[in-house]
Parts: sequence; C-alpha cells; structure tokens
Amino acid sequence: MAKGRTEIAELGEFGLIDRLTAKFQNKNKSTICGVGDDAAVIEASKDKAIVVSTDSMLEGIDFDLTYFPPKHLGYKAVTKGISDVVAMNAVPEQITLSLGISSKISVEFLDDFYEGVEFACKEAGVDLVGGDTSASMTGFVVNITAVGRAKKSDIAYRSGAKEHDLICLTGNLGASYMGLRLLERERRVLQGVDNPQPQFEGYEYLLQRYLKPRARYDMVESLRKEGIVPTSMIDITDGLASEVLQICKASKCGARIYLERMPLAKQTTALAEEMHLDPVVAALNGGEDYELLFTVPLDKREQIVSLGCIDIIGHITAESTGAYLVTPDGNDIALQAQGFTPKR
Amino acid sequence: MAKGRTEIAELGEFGLIDRLTAKFQNKNKSTICGVGDDAAVIEASKDKAIVVSTDSMLEGIDFDLTYFPPKHLGYKAVTKGISDVVAMNAVPEQITLSLGISSKISVEFLDDFYEGVEFACKEAGVDLVGGDTSASMTGFVVNITAVGRAKKSDIAYRSGAKEHDLICLTGNLGASYMGLRLLERERRVLQGVDNPQPQFEGYEYLLQRYLKPRARYDMVESLRKEGIVPTSMIDITDGLASEVLQICKASKCGARIYLERMPLAKQTTALAEEMHLDPVVAALNGGEDYELLFTVPLDKREQIVSLGCIDIIGHITAESTGAYLVTPDGNDIALQAQGFTPKR
Repeated sequence: MAKGRTEIAELGEFGLIDRLTAKFQNKNKSTICGVGDDAAVIEASKDKAIVVSTDSMLEGIDFDLTYFPPKHLGYKAVTKGISDVVAMNAVPEQITLSLGISSKISVEFLDDFYEGVEFACKEAGVDLVGGDTSASMTGFVVNITAVGRAKKSDIAYRSGAKEHDLICLTGNLGASYMGLRLLERERRVLQGVDNPQPQFEGYEYLLQRYLKPRARYDMVESLRKEGIVPTSMIDITDGLASEVLQICKASKCGARIYLERMPLAKQTTALAEEMHLDPVVAALNGGEDYELLFTVPLDKREQIVSLGCIDIIGHITAESTGAYLVTPDGNDIALQAQGFTPKR
Repeated sequence: MAKGRTEIAELGEFGLIDRLTAKFQNKNKSTICGVGDDAAVIEASKDKAIVVSTDSMLEGIDFDLTYFPPKHLGYKAVTKGISDVVAMNAVPEQITLSLGISSKISVEFLDDFYEGVEFACKEAGVDLVGGDTSASMTGFVVNITAVGRAKKSDIAYRSGAKEHDLICLTGNLGASYMGLRLLERERRVLQGVDNPQPQFEGYEYLLQRYLKPRARYDMVESLRKEGIVPTSMIDITDGLASEVLQICKASKCGARIYLERMPLAKQTTALAEEMHLDPVVAALNGGEDYELLFTVPLDKREQIVSLGCIDIIGHITAESTGAYLVTPDGNDIALQAQGFTPKR
C-alpha cells in the first residue's frame, strides 16, 4: 500500500480515539449520548435512560497472572465495568462477560474467576446476563459490558461543569498503583527463589485496592438521598490528572486542584517513602482507583461536607486559565494526561 | 493448590458455560432474560425491552490478518454484534467497540478498520456509541457489544419452539466456511512466492460471505410486516447443527431437518467438489453464516413461502425423538454440536 505508517504513539490514546470516531454521527433518536463519556446513554422510556459501557482487561497489560489470583481478577472485572455506569450517576443492574481463553487456563481457574464475578455481582446487586467464550491464541482476555439505569434528569455527564463549581473526590488516590508496585517488587525480589515468602505486612490495604477494588455505587445512592446531581462526573481509571483534563475538555473549562488537599492513605505514603517515590505522582497518574471525581455548584458545599467521605480538592475555572495543580508554596503545575501506548 | 486441573476440552464450550453460570441468579426485576440466549433482554418500559449482546474476535482464532483486510474486519465485527440482536427479533440501534491494539497495528490500519465499521453502521442504521482502546501484548482483539430494541411481545427467544412448528432458514449455508477454506488454500499455495496472485475467480461470492457478511436485520422488518413473531430464533454462527440443537435444548423439543432442503449456493457446491469436501458438512458445521434459523407455527407456512427468501428445512418434534438430519434415502443422522476448544 502506498499509505505511510503512523505509529499510535504519535497520536496517543485520546488523539487516536478522536481521530477514529470523528466521522461517526448518531442517527437513532434513542441515542441520547454516544462516544465521549464514561458510558453511552440510551433512551429507555420518556423519563428514564439506560447506560451502557464496555471495557477490556488483557493479560500482560492489565494484569499479570503470576500474582493476580483469578478470584480477585473476576471481582475486579466487575468493578471496572460497573464503575463506568456509576460514573454516569446511574445504578448498575446487569453485566455481560466475554472471555478469550488460552490453553494454559484450566476449568478450576475459571471456577475461581467466576466465583469472584459472582461475589462482586451479589455485593453490587448486579445480574450476569450474558457472555461469550472463545479460544485465545495467547493470553487471557476479559471483556465486560455493564448496563445501568437512571432517570434522565439524574445522569451526570462529563460536560456539565461550570465555572466556580467545587471539584469533589471520593476516597483516596494512589493506593492501587502502590499495591501494583509492591507486587512487582516482591515478584522481582523472589524470582527463582524456592518457596517464596513475599513481604506484604503493613501494606495489605494497598494490595486490596489493587487486586479487589470496589466501585463506588454507594455514592449514587448517597447523592440521590441528598438530592444532589453532580454537574459533571467521571471515575478515576487513568489517574486524577487525566480525569480532571477529561472534564475540562468536555465541559470547556479550566480547573485548579490543591496539592495539600490530595487524599492519600497512610500506607500509600509509607510505601512511597520506602520506595523513594513521590506519592503525589501515584495519585495524579497511577490510576485504577475507581473513585469518583465530580463537580457540584458552590452552594452544595455543606451537603457534600456532611456526607463525610468526600474531599473538595479544588474548583472549576474559566477555560482560558487551563488546568493546574497548585502547590502549598503557590506554584502552578500544568496537569498532563496519560493514555496508553502499545507495548512491544 | 491441591485442586486438580481439568482441561476445558473435557467439558466443551457449552458444558463450560453451563458450569460457570450455574450459580448465578438474577436479582433485578429489570432483567427479563439473562444467560442462555443470543442476547440478554432488559426492561426498558412497560411494553418495550432493550436487548444487549457481546462478542469477541481474536487475532489468530477468529481472523488472520495476512488475508483479512482491516476494512472488512471492521464490517464483520459490526455484523457479528448486531446479528445476535437480530436473532432476538429486535432492531439493532447501537454498538460499542473495545479494541486491544498490538504494536504492529498502525493508525492507518485502524483508519481502515473504522471505515468498515462506519460503512456497516450506516448500512444497518446503527450508531457507534462508545468503546475503549487498550494496548495488547500479542494480537489484535475486537470486542463488540450491540444494543437493540423491540416490543416485549415481539422478542423471539430460543425457548419457544413447539412440536409441529416449521423450521425456517434465511439465505444459504456453508458459503462463509468455503470462503475461509479458499483463502487458506491460496495462502498455503503462495507462501514464499514473490508478488503472489491468488486465484479467486468464480468464487467471489464465497469470499464476500466470509469477509463481509451482512446481518439479516432486513428479516426483522419483513417478519413484522407479515405480523409473524417466530416461536424461536437463533443466528447461524457455529453451524446449523449446533444452532438446531440449541433451540431443541432451550425449547425442550426434538427436530427433523431434511438434507435435500439444505440451501447451498452454487459456488459453495462447486468449490467443495473441487476440494473434495462434502458441502453438507460445511453447511452443518461451518458456521459464520449470520443467517437466521427460526420456527413458526404450521399455519404460517403460506406467509413464510410468500416472503420468498426463506426455506422451510424441517419441523419440530417431541423432545424424546431427538434431533436428526434426514437423508433422501430415509436415513436419520443425529445432529452434533460443535463448540470451541482452546488451541495450542
């Protein structure tokens, strides 16, 4: 072919998606929101919508089976799927699972994987309603589609943030990333050792956050009880910096978030110190926290504070001012997004 | 671990799915139909439902990029997704695409792939509403989720076939499989040849059926115009034999299909003869035809015949009689299902 070859790294993940989906136009009136949010929004009835999201987890990229127990992997797949539904402020109700199974995978492995899926489904009140299994030449491939439901007026898009809105965050950041770093360190250290005894004492929370994170479906209910519909919302999968930028791009706004308000767990800070890493980098770019980042109007401050488990980490600014992390000594550091670039 | 290791081949694909999903129970009242049909059925409103289906295509298993043009692959991915929606007698309206991208994939490859996706979407009146791209360590991975809509009373499950119902089939069978065999033959013959010139003359239809099959969404409209709701329906992905058995299992019935009524295209028979293959085996076990197999009550015979493009290939019997292919000389051959077993 006469065409040149452009590497995906030249565009980056987000540039690539923009390029590939630019030509598509929605034709069906049942399509309320298409590409560009955490989930697609589809008309169900006059006042209700169904949201649909799809995600993949690929062996060697998203997980390493040498230290990822299959039961946890099944649990995490469900979390990854329903977290996108939750990020639309919708209630997750169904999932489908599509697996690519290589020959090294045994029936017992799959039994364990599905035990984790079942546990997560029960916990979240979600039904497994379909799927597909096929052979895989290489690694274990998991694809999860999650379906949820909400009143149309309750759906939180990425695009509704307004100047002066408060930027809110559930839970804490960076723990999942530090859990992964810990697992990788122990694997490296113990390579070739007979009867290896990895050292995880004191860092159990980090492992749990990486291996068995829970989606924040509890927040959908908490927000509804308070009568709050976020002006924008997204879940933290690629790291806080990337998600703030996604909201800024979709909402055509800027943002200022404050370093000293960044919620970090004690174990995150402790392990980062031990490994000579900056915990703030883990928080900004680590990802896979499955916490919720959302914005609300300024007058909701008291209600948000009363919920107890939410930090207000910054506020929305005009688009022209850009998106920055503000340090305690008053420096502004421009936020930068990270997407994937293909490995090997 | 003390547990033994059971190979997936010991259970087979269908046995595996039954085992893995046995423990799951649906809890949400919005879940109308879960695992076990072409697509899940989810409540949309009092009289309408949304159907959701998910499918994977993995490089090296479902396609070989040495002879599968990316544009056709994109088209076929859409077909594979929406065919499951059509098999529920629903109108496909949205798809999401999730890709695993290895480093050998260029931006230009993806441009072509998405051109095929866009073409298929336009043709079928379907919107691309979401997706996900991630790196893949090994091959190109495509996952497609399709969403459709129907009146609850129009949905055709696998489970509604009744004794004496007519077994109907759209189009013809085995052409896709023969197209694949042709591509594989030419690749083998031309391996290592400079400037290879594959010989496809006279078999263009077979290639088109393998590389660029169209889902039978036209039939959903035709059936609705005739006021016919099939008592059961399934699409032909694993081969006629497997699909007949799926309907028999779900509907608790038997079936008799007649060899002389098996619709075969001229090119299918011609290439099978040239390659010393039995075209009936291609029809029964080849798969990927994306035609529809469905049942209707006996009194719909005239209406079905009047539609023109449908063959009545047999009828439903009592469960105790089993599922058979009847040859012109009166022999009964028991139908056998094929599922995947992991390769390598």
